[in-house]
Amino acid sequence: MLGTSTPIPRGERARERVLRAALEVLADHGMSGFTMEAVARRAGASKATVYRHWTSRATLLVDALELASEPFPRPSTGQLRTDLIELISRLEALVDVPPFARLMAAFIDAAERDPTLWALHAHITERRREPVRQVLVEARERGDIAAAADIELAIDLLAGPAFYRRFIAHRPFPEGHAAAVVDHVLTALRRPQYTT
Amino acid sequence: MLGTSTPIPRGERARERVLRAALEVLADHGMSGFTMEAVARRAGASKATVYRHWTSRATLLVDALELASEPFPRPSTGQLRTDLIELISRLEALVDVPPFARLMAAFIDAAERDPTLWALHAHITERRREPVRQVLVEARERGDIAAAADIELAIDLLAGPAFYRRFIAHRPFPEGHAAAVVDHVLTALRRPQYTT
Repeated sequence: MLGTSTPIPRGERARERVLRAALEVLADHGMSGFTMEAVARRAGASKATVYRHWTSRATLLVDALELASEPFPRPSTGQLRTDLIELISRLEALVDVPPFARLMAAFIDAAERDPTLWALHAHITERRREPVRQVLVEARERGDIAAAADIELAIDLLAGPAFYRRFIAHRPFPEGHAAAVVDHVLTALRRPQYTT
Repeated sequence: MLGTSTPIPRGERARERVLRAALEVLADHGMSGFTMEAVARRAGASKATVYRHWTSRATLLVDALELASEPFPRPSTGQLRTDLIELISRLEALVDVPPFARLMAAFIDAAERDPTLWALHAHITERRREPVRQVLVEARERGDIAAAADIELAIDLLAGPAFYRRFIAHRPFPEGHAAAVVDHVLTALRRPQYTT
């Protein structure tokens, strides 16, 4: 945000500094170390500043995660395969970034214990699915994939392996993994007799 | 274990009681509440009993997770599609059991912060992949799937959606989800011109 020509109001800058500090604390220490005190200390702010913007660590966490979870922009090549490989490659790269991975892992755990965080995580994931959905819906309209293609299932199959490899199997992504996933999923989507 | 005809040595019973208590503590409180004291209290055992079997909470965690992570038995219908649907249905049912899900989520988080747990989780997942791998390798030998089929990628595609839906998207499994995943993945595996 630094270097933009529009001045950022001072309160807004403080707010973003605290949110970035919150993400760092969460990545380093998980939910058990995620306290208002720790975030204030990391941000070089007073606890009063933090409490001025957020009444609880849950509301602070929600805003921090929104900041870290912008969905990818919609690719614009108009080529189904190329667009999907771009989106899945970006997903694999994102889950491999250590601070994001630690944040995601802390959030997976916290969501199991807090229905508000569960719903928030579902919402964030839903937003992340949207660019993939748009690409697939438009391909279906163009006739590039079967009219009966189950797009929600296809999104599970496209996005699932990245999370599974990173957080469950703890395996690195081999060269060309995103393309292999996309090609595998597209083979079924392209069959005219597709049914589920 | 109760009701078996072979008597279980007393030390063995105490060991398993502590391990079950460890799983409960981990499921209820996550890694931050997972202490030797909390496990001993939950097991109705003394801390001395716990320390007699385990020198640290890391070694206790390893044994508890081994207990909770037996891989599924190899299905025996000999029908590729039926065998895979059985394995993926069991996986979806397992990740939907609340204590197991909480345990898995706590472990995902802990693995990010501890290389020993990371390696252990990778090992447990590798064991879980084995029955799926066996089914696919035998199908390839019979010629039911393409000779060039990438079996490790197929396992990612078969197992990934269950974890992704449960821990990332927080969506329920619709009726027939496992069969839809299997059918989608098999469509590509069965093409003779399969390449990756």
